[in-house]
Amino acid sequence: MPYQNIETLSWLGGTDGTLRLIDQTLLPSEVKEIDCRSVETVWEAIKKLRVRGAPAIGISAAYGVITGMQTLPQEDSLDAFKKRLNEVTEYLASSRPTAVNLFWALDRMKAKAESLYGQVPVSELAECLLAEAQTIHEEDRTICRAIGKHGQDIIKNGDTFLTHCNAGGLATADYGTALAVFFAAAESGKKISVYADETRPLLQGARLTAWELMQRGIDVTLICDSMAALVMRQGKINGVIVGADRIAANGDTANKIGTYSAAVNAKVHNVPFYVAAPVSTFDLTLPDGSLIPIEERLADEITNGFGKRTAPEGVKVYNPAFDVTPAELITGIITERGIISPVNTENVKRRVR
Amino acid sequence: MPYQNIETLSWLGGTDGTLRLIDQTLLPSEVKEIDCRSVETVWEAIKKLRVRGAPAIGISAAYGVITGMQTLPQEDSLDAFKKRLNEVTEYLASSRPTAVNLFWALDRMKAKAESLYGQVPVSELAECLLAEAQTIHEEDRTICRAIGKHGQDIIKNGDTFLTHCNAGGLATADYGTALAVFFAAAESGKKISVYADETRPLLQGARLTAWELMQRGIDVTLICDSMAALVMRQGKINGVIVGADRIAANGDTANKIGTYSAAVNAKVHNVPFYVAAPVSTFDLTLPDGSLIPIEERLADEITNGFGKRTAPEGVKVYNPAFDVTPAELITGIITERGIISPVNTENVKRRVR
Repeated sequence: MPYQNIETLSWLGGTDGTLRLIDQTLLPSEVKEIDCRSVETVWEAIKKLRVRGAPAIGISAAYGVITGMQTLPQEDSLDAFKKRLNEVTEYLASSRPTAVNLFWALDRMKAKAESLYGQVPVSELAECLLAEAQTIHEEDRTICRAIGKHGQDIIKNGDTFLTHCNAGGLATADYGTALAVFFAAAESGKKISVYADETRPLLQGARLTAWELMQRGIDVTLICDSMAALVMRQGKINGVIVGADRIAANGDTANKIGTYSAAVNAKVHNVPFYVAAPVSTFDLTLPDGSLIPIEERLADEITNGFGKRTAPEGVKVYNPAFDVTPAELITGIITERGIISPVNTENVKRRVR
Repeated sequence: MPYQNIETLSWLGGTDGTLRLIDQTLLPSEVKEIDCRSVETVWEAIKKLRVRGAPAIGISAAYGVITGMQTLPQEDSLDAFKKRLNEVTEYLASSRPTAVNLFWALDRMKAKAESLYGQVPVSELAECLLAEAQTIHEEDRTICRAIGKHGQDIIKNGDTFLTHCNAGGLATADYGTALAVFFAAAESGKKISVYADETRPLLQGARLTAWELMQRGIDVTLICDSMAALVMRQGKINGVIVGADRIAANGDTANKIGTYSAAVNAKVHNVPFYVAAPVSTFDLTLPDGSLIPIEERLADEITNGFGKRTAPEGVKVYNPAFDVTPAELITGIITERGIISPVNTENVKRRVR
């Protein structure tokens, strides 16, 4: 999805190229691109949330592999290639623990390499891996469009939906997951309004989602996270759609902290609650959400977020970046292959395997 | 409650004196007192939340009446006194719409004046009103202690409670309402831990509650509002206590935005949910909470709160300062006269009339 003709992420050049990203930590006040010329800068960009959103993390990691392989002398052996590829993928996997798309993309890159060992000269492996990263990138665009197409049936003309965090173009290659549904509904001629939770602590809703919706001309109202319950009680909300960072086999969904609270409130107020995510977000090795690792981030994000310290020095802070919403609170999961509903292990496996 | 030996609010001098307040908008990074020498500066201090918390607003308004009467020439007539008193109380009443303690304190000052008209010389009325304001102030200290005493029975040794916003010493003359219960429990020797919601948009939980609890040596963990549901699901929370800005006859309670969301989550997670407030917070003229006026504040509080703009220019914002928690979500209301439970019109009227 272009912003003022800028892509969320893009690869410039061939196997010796660079990964260009919008630095999302600066949005919306500053639209600045950064060029990642090493695997270390890609790792840092993921860690620091310069690029974020499960699908965009996956694509960035795939390109990150290419930057990591650039340090290998061209004349090196297959063994050296394998060793370096392992180092690079392990290193990138250590950037963030929750979004499974990161591991999915790295596994896919490794599987591609393994399928080629002995089949193509070592000197051509990097080019084949770049093609794979570009395929992952291109597929994500198609997936976003398909999620939008499948999801938009749940939206009626005149509806008002709530979303949390940012599952938009900035979280993907192109068009978003949760926001794709709003974009597709609007493109099909439906009038739609959106309430965007600001999403503390890092305000992805205020900084990114509100911005994307305004750029697309969709009516958006920004609220604090704690106001979601009130607007639901006021009868203003016809449905909720959020993205996902990892979905267990039974449909339990890890997503940005605050998603669970929104889901509980949706249930209590009889508001349908949907997750929108590509199939790559499912982790079928986990039977339920209790085993999804939840990243805890620094206290500073809460106590000192916006240019001014807003809590006492030395205060103890709990800052989980995600929570897990149990499947029973989720009306449906919108994927590129259609909507999974009701959400249970059988229906997930039927759609995802 | 003194902070570094500074009172939340105090009256300096006689009828020609001034109201001294901690400017709570600067806390915790700066502890600065301001002297209000006119009714306009008292009004501004309430409006801008330099003083906040329903009981503290009431006391400030009572003293504000004294500052307002200072502009009246001493030799003036009873009619002029009555006219000016009406002007002053109406003006102060326009500062904030939701906390009923504001109107309660102003009504009490007017009733005092009316009881004295014709009984004491006009020249002595101001002194009698100052005595009334000081009585309101002094009573609030006693009330806070009584709330703490009645409330602390609900806390067991080793419990962890959640609170939202600030209902502490900074919201009252002295010791708080919700926090009074924690203080009293700790003073009685119980080990207690508190999770404090940061309370967007103005972060009274992060700035004020965390600070007060740390100063009293009570274990406190700061979280974002949207994390409350998660910590309840994790089984970490034994109960919730919040303050109140206005309570209808049936127990429906207006309090800082986000209280309703916390109450819904408490119900869903089987966590007892208590309100702590003086009897002056009840508005028996309202049969239920639907008629409580809810103040909406400026978008800027959400989009530009902490030294940096964090949302797109021109974004639409909904910023209600309060929400109403229905009585059926409230386990009990802790007052200076004991705990009202179950919360219903009959039990409220029995305790409050």
